[in-house]
Amino acid sequence: MSLTNLFATRTEGMKASEIRELLKLLDQPEIISFAGGIPDPALFPREAFARAMARAVSAEAAGTTLQYAPSEGYLPLRRWIVGYMATLGIACTPENVLITAGSQQALDYLGKLFVDPSDTALVGWPTYLGALGAFNAYQPRYDRLDPAANRGPAEIAADAEAAGGRVKFAYLSADFANPTGVTMDLAEREAVLDMAETLDIAVIEDAAYQALRYSGTAYPPLLAIEIARKGDLEACRTIYCGSFSKTLAPGLRVGWVVAAKPVIGQMVLMKQAADLQTATLNQVVTAEVAEELFDEHVAMLRKVYGARLQAMLASLERHMPKGVSWTRPEGGMFIWVHLPEGEDGAKLLERALATEKVAFVPGNAFFADGSNRNTLRLNFSMSDEATIDAGIQRLARVMDAAGIR
Amino acid sequence: MSLTNLFATRTEGMKASEIRELLKLLDQPEIISFAGGIPDPALFPREAFARAMARAVSAEAAGTTLQYAPSEGYLPLRRWIVGYMATLGIACTPENVLITAGSQQALDYLGKLFVDPSDTALVGWPTYLGALGAFNAYQPRYDRLDPAANRGPAEIAADAEAAGGRVKFAYLSADFANPTGVTMDLAEREAVLDMAETLDIAVIEDAAYQALRYSGTAYPPLLAIEIARKGDLEACRTIYCGSFSKTLAPGLRVGWVVAAKPVIGQMVLMKQAADLQTATLNQVVTAEVAEELFDEHVAMLRKVYGARLQAMLASLERHMPKGVSWTRPEGGMFIWVHLPEGEDGAKLLERALATEKVAFVPGNAFFADGSNRNTLRLNFSMSDEATIDAGIQRLARVMDAAGIR
Repeated sequence: MSLTNLFATRTEGMKASEIRELLKLLDQPEIISFAGGIPDPALFPREAFARAMARAVSAEAAGTTLQYAPSEGYLPLRRWIVGYMATLGIACTPENVLITAGSQQALDYLGKLFVDPSDTALVGWPTYLGALGAFNAYQPRYDRLDPAANRGPAEIAADAEAAGGRVKFAYLSADFANPTGVTMDLAEREAVLDMAETLDIAVIEDAAYQALRYSGTAYPPLLAIEIARKGDLEACRTIYCGSFSKTLAPGLRVGWVVAAKPVIGQMVLMKQAADLQTATLNQVVTAEVAEELFDEHVAMLRKVYGARLQAMLASLERHMPKGVSWTRPEGGMFIWVHLPEGEDGAKLLERALATEKVAFVPGNAFFADGSNRNTLRLNFSMSDEATIDAGIQRLARVMDAAGIR
Repeated sequence: MSLTNLFATRTEGMKASEIRELLKLLDQPEIISFAGGIPDPALFPREAFARAMARAVSAEAAGTTLQYAPSEGYLPLRRWIVGYMATLGIACTPENVLITAGSQQALDYLGKLFVDPSDTALVGWPTYLGALGAFNAYQPRYDRLDPAANRGPAEIAADAEAAGGRVKFAYLSADFANPTGVTMDLAEREAVLDMAETLDIAVIEDAAYQALRYSGTAYPPLLAIEIARKGDLEACRTIYCGSFSKTLAPGLRVGWVVAAKPVIGQMVLMKQAADLQTATLNQVVTAEVAEELFDEHVAMLRKVYGARLQAMLASLERHMPKGVSWTRPEGGMFIWVHLPEGEDGAKLLERALATEKVAFVPGNAFFADGSNRNTLRLNFSMSDEATIDAGIQRLARVMDAAGIR
């Protein structure tokens, strides 16, 4: 007897994430890991959380914070988000905001909302592998989101139709994307919106890293650009996914979605059916901590992470062989590395762990078709500058031993 | 432009829950509400939570409790659950346990795990409407779980095949089921397991209310019975869903699933893709509070809720007209009421809110086909004995005015 015979066909697309499996191997202290994608816990606003939690479990408050709450989310938190979105050029009301268990849950719900099997999702090549994981449960076909490519919307739509569905959305991270660290300029943002209009599809804007800009000039989110075009969020096709995981702390699992009311309304029903609500206490303390110190805390993170980014870029410059190239992000948590053609990031990782005890994520995991094996992702948020330089020197030695020049 | 045109076909089955919509109307203090299904917040173990949270955000702990954690859940909590399951006759290991965001999320994941569109789910008639809501997203057909009925497994399987799929699971709550409060006896439990063997399907055992027994003798969970039959959880088709929502507090959203390893393994992948993990801090404090006081706290709840149940039963006895009947539960949070044939619980609720300010849930919401309109569900966990008696008297006056005899 095995229940696995009873599993739905959608489970065929659910594979273990290479990153999550990798993270389990990295618990040895002598390893220098650039593999994670996680914030430095030493930078959590711990004392503010401690104060907020003490208030949340006081005799006056606990009857509410430990109790069930509405599926759409805690109103003061939704109000804080409305104020935050306004600073990004996005005018909305609490009815446009759904609180989710991190922005990962928003991606799951958006797959569930839009994708019938064989529908097409346009994604970056590479893209966030957690987005692929979330969408895979709904059995989409993937096509390449690349407004600058030769293939125009007509061809993309025709291919989607030939595959038995239609294009439902484009998914992207416009700022310091995971895994590349690359930011879309204004023309690229406009081009995505133009293409979305032509294809009549939704745009899912994953803004997980947006607040973490360390240099250069910020571009408005796609949703802000679309509101400026159309005058009203209710007329917009962009769905904005935000997260407190990279700015305050990930362990409370609090994120949000901003979109037109019919989209939020349907997602509230979905959330009610899927987990009732995001944990009440987590929303209450997040609202209080955000209210107290969001801006100054993010300013501190920018300074610390920005220095780590510069340290890693400088170290790569000093130690990498000629045939290796990398991105120069202005924010986020990642640098994306290209090895010479024919090299294999996964094999290099095996060698790196075995010989020099340095870790990273092989890049092919971030491609919907598993291609581009000669890439890798480096995280700089978890290590101080000295460790970064030591780790990059280790990586250079691994490359040298592997004959990468 | 409307994105609703792009929604997946599964959204057609996602409707607003009558209960959740109702709860929004009940914020007026003069209403006596038997509509909710929620624990009394005055009984939350607030001080234990306060102590556990203070420890969880201490300088030593916060780097872990506010950080990402493994998708399968916090190991000390899974270990506590292993010990708890042993007291129910269920031998398992932490690898058999997945922590979910409440048992509602377990139901969503189990729908996702098993149901291809047109597959059949066997459910009680009535059943927990949140289970129907969770499963609906995966477009099942429903058939009636009733091992004592004339239709045998062969007929049920043939009907499922004719509908274009196969039977995938039976869903049930064996103890003090929502909405009826009824408990299955040993023979009924055995009969479900027999039928599951014949049909070769999974059994989803929703144990949300299991710990809340106020009188009578406990029967073993179906999973315990199946383990006794087969000698090993790994050979079992029963999947046990537990929750801390009714015993400790619902606002932290912590529940669990116990099943054979291949099921848990697939669900861990699903959780990783859908929301990464249940909030770390919530798991840590739940583990500590459960460790400290679970048994004594549940003993106190049994005493308080048991007295409320007896008060409501006595009050119904005193005030209900002859044509009305109801269940006599031995635990849980609900009593199920039958009005005379031809009466309509929804219309009675309208009248009850308008005239006597007393609320309940019309029973048809709990039937997959919306039938049995002459039923209603009464909750007794949220009101003290005096309020219960006053509310039942109000209800009796509403019935009298409606001509119910």
